[in-house]
Amino acid sequence: MCPALLMASFRTVKGFRDFFPEECALRNYIFDTWRSVARRYGFVEYEAPVVESTDLYRKKSGDEITSQLFCFSDKADREISLRPEVTPSLARMATARHRDYKKPMKWFQIGSCFRYEEPQEGRTREFIQFNADILGDASQGTDAELVALSIDVMLAFGIQAEDFVIRLSNRQIWTDFLADKNIAVEHTSAFLQIIDKIERAKPEDTAKKLEAIGLTLDEVRNFMTATDGDHPAFAALKADLSARGLWSYVKIDASIVRGLAYYTGTVFEVFDLKHGLRAVAGGGRYDKLCSLMSDGSVDMPAAGFAMGDVVLGILLSKTPGAQFGITEYLNAQQGVEAYVVIADEAQRAPALATVQALRSAGVRVDYSFSAQKVGKQFQAAENQKARLAVVFGAEYPQVAIKNLVSRSQELVAVEQLVSLVTDELKRPITGKLIA
Amino acid sequence: MCPALLMASFRTVKGFRDFFPEECALRNYIFDTWRSVARRYGFVEYEAPVVESTDLYRKKSGDEITSQLFCFSDKADREISLRPEVTPSLARMATARHRDYKKPMKWFQIGSCFRYEEPQEGRTREFIQFNADILGDASQGTDAELVALSIDVMLAFGIQAEDFVIRLSNRQIWTDFLADKNIAVEHTSAFLQIIDKIERAKPEDTAKKLEAIGLTLDEVRNFMTATDGDHPAFAALKADLSARGLWSYVKIDASIVRGLAYYTGTVFEVFDLKHGLRAVAGGGRYDKLCSLMSDGSVDMPAAGFAMGDVVLGILLSKTPGAQFGITEYLNAQQGVEAYVVIADEAQRAPALATVQALRSAGVRVDYSFSAQKVGKQFQAAENQKARLAVVFGAEYPQVAIKNLVSRSQELVAVEQLVSLVTDELKRPITGKLIA
Repeated sequence: MCPALLMASFRTVKGFRDFFPEECALRNYIFDTWRSVARRYGFVEYEAPVVESTDLYRKKSGDEITSQLFCFSDKADREISLRPEVTPSLARMATARHRDYKKPMKWFQIGSCFRYEEPQEGRTREFIQFNADILGDASQGTDAELVALSIDVMLAFGIQAEDFVIRLSNRQIWTDFLADKNIAVEHTSAFLQIIDKIERAKPEDTAKKLEAIGLTLDEVRNFMTATDGDHPAFAALKADLSARGLWSYVKIDASIVRGLAYYTGTVFEVFDLKHGLRAVAGGGRYDKLCSLMSDGSVDMPAAGFAMGDVVLGILLSKTPGAQFGITEYLNAQQGVEAYVVIADEAQRAPALATVQALRSAGVRVDYSFSAQKVGKQFQAAENQKARLAVVFGAEYPQVAIKNLVSRSQELVAVEQLVSLVTDELKRPITGKLIA
Repeated sequence: MCPALLMASFRTVKGFRDFFPEECALRNYIFDTWRSVARRYGFVEYEAPVVESTDLYRKKSGDEITSQLFCFSDKADREISLRPEVTPSLARMATARHRDYKKPMKWFQIGSCFRYEEPQEGRTREFIQFNADILGDASQGTDAELVALSIDVMLAFGIQAEDFVIRLSNRQIWTDFLADKNIAVEHTSAFLQIIDKIERAKPEDTAKKLEAIGLTLDEVRNFMTATDGDHPAFAALKADLSARGLWSYVKIDASIVRGLAYYTGTVFEVFDLKHGLRAVAGGGRYDKLCSLMSDGSVDMPAAGFAMGDVVLGILLSKTPGAQFGITEYLNAQQGVEAYVVIADEAQRAPALATVQALRSAGVRVDYSFSAQKVGKQFQAAENQKARLAVVFGAEYPQVAIKNLVSRSQELVAVEQLVSLVTDELKRPITGKLIA
């Protein structure tokens, strides 16, 4: 072992994250919220491997994709990659077993993805995605369901109408536009790339590129301005989302095409309105991907979206309305409900029996593993946010229950303890925890 | 792209697993059970990256470890690995920020690990581990807490006293034995390797190896037979676990030393009693690891154990008593509670408004995205295990609520619908779902 190694203080690999308990609790809050809203919508959860053959990603995105992949050869020279996204795995799984599931398949997934990119605000090399997809249904009702889900997820986080917007478009409007202008079909892909960058690129560069395929910046800009919710491409979606009371969250934005080549219809992104962050989520319809990934053997329409945890986490931290839900979740999840104080070591055995009995009754309990001063044990109870302390001392077989919120106290027979503690914990909390 | 690639039907990489919805639900049941028992014990959750520097594993286990690692160089020539276990990451995290947390730190984690081994029953290249560790407390009470947690986790899965055993030992008994026999300390590691394999190796091979360090197989066997719960090394643990009523789950077994070199005291493994599977879980005390991983800067006692999902999953499938919990969980989690049937497409808009209102009230709801025959919609309601169907038809603004379990039905005003549905879902289920 080299001396440098012996001296090294270990760190996370560049772009990877530790989740210390406080960060893990916030992560779990995000997971639980994603999961509960998806389940209200009737989605079922699946998971794919975080490692797939590199060919799976080449097939979907071409050879260039490998520059952004954590790809490597294993000891048997298999070319494998840490997944950069979950959709190729979903297409692999869904096409392999599509006969086993009723359509439409409403599937969601939560897990890590990996991209070899330079870390910056909102981008890490490892990030967690929530993916929701509907397979086997080509109707616009499907697209509406997904947009509605993305809105309800934001609302469930306490991110409200004034905080975010769904920027929505449909690739078909540009296909029709190009046909209308007699632009050859082979220019479609290059054209969509120009539109994708139109908000960030210099106007003169955009104009030059458009000219090369026979268009002016003005006619494109005019078309974009004129395209709104009354365009027939959005009629079904508008009717559906209006019926749900959710159309007001949507803004038609023809510049949204989504960089990835495989979208075929509706495309949308979720953006915050106050902080200029990257997209919180994005997705759309990709009717040809299953066919591509199965070499034409399974032709199944599909649509879906993904939401990452990194931009969402930044947005949550900047949104006052989102704090209540986080606090409520953390209060319910963290610490213990009761702390068993062993004031007299002679009573450790019955105290341990009580710890065991309370836990078996579902109560979250902690205690000191070895002899400790009583004051230190009460301090530990407070650190753990315990609502009750149960004190085993000289009075045994009588035991004191102290309510650390109301500061009330009673002496009870040890046999009654478990039922009294569980009853007490069911009552609403009044007053503040001892300071 | 080569023609072979175009023809390929994609599969999972060798040793990796897909979790289709039914498998993912079982995985979630396992996660939720681990999590809820750990939280009852006052453990808090953390997570570490699945990718760490390869040096982290070399530091703990030596250079040889790399033969079992998914290790590779990234595009910047960093040597990185998919984690084979979580303990080195825990030691890295805990020593870096030990001042920020009260001791003892009771931390648990759930996530994937990766080993480059030949897949076989109970071993995959990717597996999920539950890790529970207590840092900063050297008392045997800590060890007892961990053993108790491992027992309660098994019991929470419906795996009962007749199904499993804790095989427990303490490395110290062998250190004392060797000292007693005047065997030089440098033989300790080789000796423990022999003990680790004593149950699987040929007796004549074991005898030969023992002779080489000056011992006979008989004296070792006799010592093992004589070592039971009355050995003073187990006194504190026995008193503690007896007080909890859990000592009967423990069998002292001096052959348990755990292959890994870093254990320093108590060691234990959880084994099934009926199917001869590999260990379900294993762990022990490792008081010197934090110091090793921090180059001596943080000397913190520690103990912990890990339980994998693969052997546990096999055991669950073979244990009749474990089925009830699984079924109950899946019934509560899968499918939807209400299905909105749109019998008349003219009522799609108010039906969608109701879908939205029910979901906002927390009800799991599904419906058909496009026009469908009524019979097909009821079929979908049954497939989704819906308890109620809400029918929007010609009677609108009156709407029918059908109880698909009791087959009763009533016509109600649409304004009353949400409160009636949520009330109905709170009632206990009687009768069976329509067949």
